[in-house]
Amino acid sequence: MLQSSQWFSEIAADDASAFSLKIRAKLHEEQTPYQRIEIYATEGFGNLMVIDGCTMLSSRDNFLYHEMMSHPALFTHPDPRRICIIGGGDCGTLKEVLKHPQIESAVQIDIDERVTRLAERYFPELAESNADPRAQLLFEDGVRWIQRAEAGSLDIIIVDSTDPVGPAAGLFTSAFQADCRRALAPHGVLIQQSESPLYHMRILREMHTAMRTAGFSASRTLFFPQAIYPSGWWSATMASKDGDLSTFRHDDARDKPFETHYYNAEIHHAALAQPEFFRRALMAPPDATIA
Amino acid sequence: MLQSSQWFSEIAADDASAFSLKIRAKLHEEQTPYQRIEIYATEGFGNLMVIDGCTMLSSRDNFLYHEMMSHPALFTHPDPRRICIIGGGDCGTLKEVLKHPQIESAVQIDIDERVTRLAERYFPELAESNADPRAQLLFEDGVRWIQRAEAGSLDIIIVDSTDPVGPAAGLFTSAFQADCRRALAPHGVLIQQSESPLYHMRILREMHTAMRTAGFSASRTLFFPQAIYPSGWWSATMASKDGDLSTFRHDDARDKPFETHYYNAEIHHAALAQPEFFRRALMAPPDATIA
Repeated sequence: MLQSSQWFSEIAADDASAFSLKIRAKLHEEQTPYQRIEIYATEGFGNLMVIDGCTMLSSRDNFLYHEMMSHPALFTHPDPRRICIIGGGDCGTLKEVLKHPQIESAVQIDIDERVTRLAERYFPELAESNADPRAQLLFEDGVRWIQRAEAGSLDIIIVDSTDPVGPAAGLFTSAFQADCRRALAPHGVLIQQSESPLYHMRILREMHTAMRTAGFSASRTLFFPQAIYPSGWWSATMASKDGDLSTFRHDDARDKPFETHYYNAEIHHAALAQPEFFRRALMAPPDATIA
Repeated sequence: MLQSSQWFSEIAADDASAFSLKIRAKLHEEQTPYQRIEIYATEGFGNLMVIDGCTMLSSRDNFLYHEMMSHPALFTHPDPRRICIIGGGDCGTLKEVLKHPQIESAVQIDIDERVTRLAERYFPELAESNADPRAQLLFEDGVRWIQRAEAGSLDIIIVDSTDPVGPAAGLFTSAFQADCRRALAPHGVLIQQSESPLYHMRILREMHTAMRTAGFSASRTLFFPQAIYPSGWWSATMASKDGDLSTFRHDDARDKPFETHYYNAEIHHAALAQPEFFRRALMAPPDATIA
């Protein structure tokens, strides 16, 4: 085993690789009704949140994930006003969403309130928009919340979840995605974290199929680096209720009235580029074997 | 320490992170006059070459690096015929270069012949173009070879080196780059591996400065994923003898007469997109502190 009292290691068992961060101290550990949460102070990445043994976010590199889970979808929609975040309990995605001045409401629905309370304590920079009057923080089952949501009541749904096992498994199904589609207004956009292009091509392919099965008219994957996630390369997949996702509000993204650390209009366009192996895997017949 | 007989770990000490691969067996180990080379059979990444404790390449993910070290530079030059690879002893870059039908000569100059001999044995798929009549494999000091090269005799120089310590330190200097510029013909392009955008922004910034100091008219960084390298995110930086690097032979890249696994025209364009933090760091005053 790869174990050391000085390092936190996440092992990607199927791919027989691991990523480790040197730790200064364990700051917190608890078992909630839903999952086990640990917080570490690391030597090189600031604070680290771990859920059920998987790295969730670090102070140093969460900007990549949070910016890419929010800005591309928001600049793809012609006029996003009503946003819902499923999961996202660390509030980092919520903070990015609320940077867009036209947002009227942003509801974050995480099943586990403890994630948010610990983020407020150990990642206060991510929680700094929680008191925004446009923000609403709910702690309940996102799958049921979306089922009960009024049809056509949302412009963007962001699925900022853990991996497709345990509490998040229900978020990786076309039944959930069909509920999302019903809750979206015309021009609505769903974006969902979709794992590593190098390690999880099968999950990515199934997500595109599920989105089309759910009735979405188009789906596109965004690619971005994420050092602390398995393989260091991550993705999010967008689906459009009725559009084609081939364009975005480029000039608005170029002239955005807020700062980012990774995202810009050029990066948005670049994130949509499909590697050859990915393009071939999506085009392969349904029964093809995908590594 | 992060040690286990079942795993190979590379620790990025300055950033207090590590990447590990589970090993099935150590296939080879030797100390050459230049460096220590180890070869492992891994559980999830095929074979792995390690030099002086740093992962160099794996069977599984080397396609990312080798394609991005070759095709963008070759499709940037209007008519590349004479190529030189400094380092690159595993022959993977040479193989990609020789996929371009117009290439007349490709000289690979690695100081350590043992890297090539071990690649031939443990990564035979990378060495399959070594017998191409256009290829020439030399085993000597690349810095001196470039100093002696006839002025204007090369179209592309690819610096496929280890990190800027030990045998490769001399490759990260403007004196070496000025020698490269002299050896390049008009429209010549230099491309050099330039470390992790997340971990090594200082090195990247110094490389741009060194390239301009060496007389190149433009420099641009390409970004790409690389699971086994520190942070999982890597870069290569191009410099042009007299062009501006803002365009490439897009239609030729789109219609390329060979297969790739990552690179295509869309990916080429995407790799040039500059993250916000990178753009700001390059624009910062020379004495600014760069993380």
